Amino acid sequence: MNILIQNGTIITMHNRKIIRQGAIAIEDKNIIDVGKNRDLKRKYGTGYEKIDAKDKVVMPGLINTHQHAAMSLLRGYADDLPLQEWLGKWILPIEKYMTPHDIYVGALLTATESIMSGTTTVNTMYHYTREENEAKAFAETGLRGVIGHVCFSQRKKEDKTALKDLAKNWHNKAKGLIRVSVDPHSPYTVDPEYTKELKEIKEELNQKYGSEKTPIIWHTHVAETIDEQEKIRKAFKIKLKNGVMTYLDSLGVLDKHVIAAHCVALTGRDITIMKQRKVKASHNPISNLKLASGISPVPRMLRKGLTVSLGTDSPCSNNTADMFETMKATALLHKGVNKNPTLTPAKQVLAMATIEGAKALSWENEIGSIEVGKKADLAIVDFKKPHLCPLYNEISHLVYAAKSADVNTVIINGKIVMENRQPTTINIEKVMAMAEKAKNSLLERLARNIK
Amino acid sequence: MNILIQNGTIITMHNRKIIRQGAIAIEDKNIIDVGKNRDLKRKYGTGYEKIDAKDKVVMPGLINTHQHAAMSLLRGYADDLPLQEWLGKWILPIEKYMTPHDIYVGALLTATESIMSGTTTVNTMYHYTREENEAKAFAETGLRGVIGHVCFSQRKKEDKTALKDLAKNWHNKAKGLIRVSVDPHSPYTVDPEYTKELKEIKEELNQKYGSEKTPIIWHTHVAETIDEQEKIRKAFKIKLKNGVMTYLDSLGVLDKHVIAAHCVALTGRDITIMKQRKVKASHNPISNLKLASGISPVPRMLRKGLTVSLGTDSPCSNNTADMFETMKATALLHKGVNKNPTLTPAKQVLAMATIEGAKALSWENEIGSIEVGKKADLAIVDFKKPHLCPLYNEISHLVYAAKSADVNTVIINGKIVMENRQPTTINIEKVMAMAEKAKNSLLERLARNIK
Repeated sequence: MNILIQNGTIITMHNRKIIRQGAIAIEDKNIIDVGKNRDLKRKYGTGYEKIDAKDKVVMPGLINTHQHAAMSLLRGYADDLPLQEWLGKWILPIEKYMTPHDIYVGALLTATESIMSGTTTVNTMYHYTREENEAKAFAETGLRGVIGHVCFSQRKKEDKTALKDLAKNWHNKAKGLIRVSVDPHSPYTVDPEYTKELKEIKEELNQKYGSEKTPIIWHTHVAETIDEQEKIRKAFKIKLKNGVMTYLDSLGVLDKHVIAAHCVALTGRDITIMKQRKVKASHNPISNLKLASGISPVPRMLRKGLTVSLGTDSPCSNNTADMFETMKATALLHKGVNKNPTLTPAKQVLAMATIEGAKALSWENEIGSIEVGKKADLAIVDFKKPHLCPLYNEISHLVYAAKSADVNTVIINGKIVMENRQPTTINIEKVMAMAEKAKNSLLERLARNIK
Repeated sequence: MNILIQNGTIITMHNRKIIRQGAIAIEDKNIIDVGKNRDLKRKYGTGYEKIDAKDKVVMPGLINTHQHAAMSLLRGYADDLPLQEWLGKWILPIEKYMTPHDIYVGALLTATESIMSGTTTVNTMYHYTREENEAKAFAETGLRGVIGHVCFSQRKKEDKTALKDLAKNWHNKAKGLIRVSVDPHSPYTVDPEYTKELKEIKEELNQKYGSEKTPIIWHTHVAETIDEQEKIRKAFKIKLKNGVMTYLDSLGVLDKHVIAAHCVALTGRDITIMKQRKVKASHNPISNLKLASGISPVPRMLRKGLTVSLGTDSPCSNNTADMFETMKATALLHKGVNKNPTLTPAKQVLAMATIEGAKALSWENEIGSIEVGKKADLAIVDFKKPHLCPLYNEISHLVYAAKSADVNTVIINGKIVMENRQPTTINIEKVMAMAEKAKNSLLERLARNIK
């Protein structure tokens, strides 16, 4: 389908260009023109479905670089608890009872929430199963995503089968919407030998299914909590001296296709190595605060010139998939804790949630900004709202005042997936009913100890 | 009008009672019955307008205990700047050009945003003018509020006139919706003698216009930044030893009708004195972070048993009037900075935004919880949303996942002020047009230096 978006204010996130009274022409999946309304209206008349963006702001779709999409099924199941009790007595025990169908339903719910809040790409790490999975949920809803399978030392055999199956069936599939990743859970749950082996598996899978333009990436938790070095020492009898990232580098696994989630407890040496190896960070402020993990040195990473993107983390530790909330939290938090109100300004935060997110997923050749030749992944935000009034500065409003519910229309891969707040690919009522039913059934299996 | 709300889940905020399949009967301004659906449906049949709260949660309206409502006219005008530059070069210069009409329009905009996000009471501090003012805006929209006039040493005469006029014309007016307060700006902008004099004025006004049940309260900024002691020293040549609250106590102005906004840089002695004098705190996490003021010792105040309520502060330093955002920020922030995920749990935060807010404004005899005999100030939240699915715990969802846009219906003083997200007392389009026009005119006066 060809689309002409007209009369809008376009925040391109490319060379800081903002086009007022702007228009965007889309053919099939791609942005073919971006410019002034008057010019594009002349060029693209018949054969283009028109979207009127008057009083609206058109921005690149938001990119959520750290999620566990399936876990929205556990949203609000346990909060406000000590970390070990939360994980050990609540989350891990119930997760054991989650079926492939639960994973699919949770991901469907997250996909729904993501699209409805202007997020067009989600990087998710969970257990892959062939029967039903997150990739299927994303492909059905038309959400772009990187789908990972999370690996642990205890189940190398199942992991290897899952990784191969995931790559074969899903990498660069669904019209290019879905890519896959290799996801070692963390440096304290994946032993050094297995970490190196996973790197080899990643290379093999890339040779078979990936390409320079469509790489299979590496998605992992790094330095989420301050005791991570201690956890590694306990698990593998390895005493670290210079930080967790430095340790990972010693295993030879760091490169430009690595995205490290959290990056809370980094040493100076860790940050230097990230710069050298071009490792990307996913900052998850809401989850880090809720779980009391600590506060990531984001301003320091940014000063160093690292790619720092934004993620919500799972709906168990957030409890939403709302990137507008994460943008505002990011803009606020680093000012407050560093006692400097000039840090993480709105324009930088908006970049973190869009073009930097694309870079973090090695996908910036196709997404993250509104440019000719890129895929049409867009969010159209209705600015005719009391809380977005009056208007001095669109970017300030997007970061500090706009809400996910202001997102009016969303386009992914050239397809309208939400129009006037109505998803076109999803039956919301049905997804909610599926989730509620899956939750009840899960609680029953847990109570009766039936897997 | 008589109203029967039925089929809802009622979070009473009274004795931790949650009523599923619950109902609330309202006559005139008051809640006359709260209970199970089946009982109330029998008792209150004809003559009651029915509101169906199926799949919805009914909660006390949120209480925003620190605002400068007029300043929404400057939302997004200046952000991400060093504090002194922000205030000295941006906010204060443009404020000088604000007219009484601008104050009214800004307050109208804040009232609209507040009602639409489930806030039913706002405590606001700004410049009172007889012609047009915040009280008029609140009364017109049906928003409950405490309206203050902000006092500075430099303009004692105008202040005194304004305070008397405000109390006479507005205290306990508009069917009891509006109360007033005496608002010394801060300990560093109001000299000690004038502070004491304002206390006397407050007592006089209370004798004339107030009562034990409807007191004129004292609303002031205290210890917003860590350099406040130094500011006091510079301004008045007074060297403090034990903290700003301790200093205020030495002036004899602290009592149970004092609400202190921010309370960031408190000493241990300050907190002890707040407890002794029953001083109430308004915690403003978003503003404190955005302006890099510091982080209030909220868990410590709560442990001490103080009344800690929540405020958004002005839309210049937030940039919204959204108490859902402030609840989530509160729940997250103190866990993160204190490295303790059990602090400020959801139920405590919800209390801070409702019943504790009522106490902070000395208004808990009428608002803050859903109880027979209290005024009907309610927010009805639609839980049939993907991001509120599945449902394990309503209070977790209200604090961690719900958004202001989920508020479906709002009742203040027994009157429906929003139904199905449509305000009944406000023409939204008109308010937005007025605000945009006022902003343009303000910018023009600023550019041309016309007051």
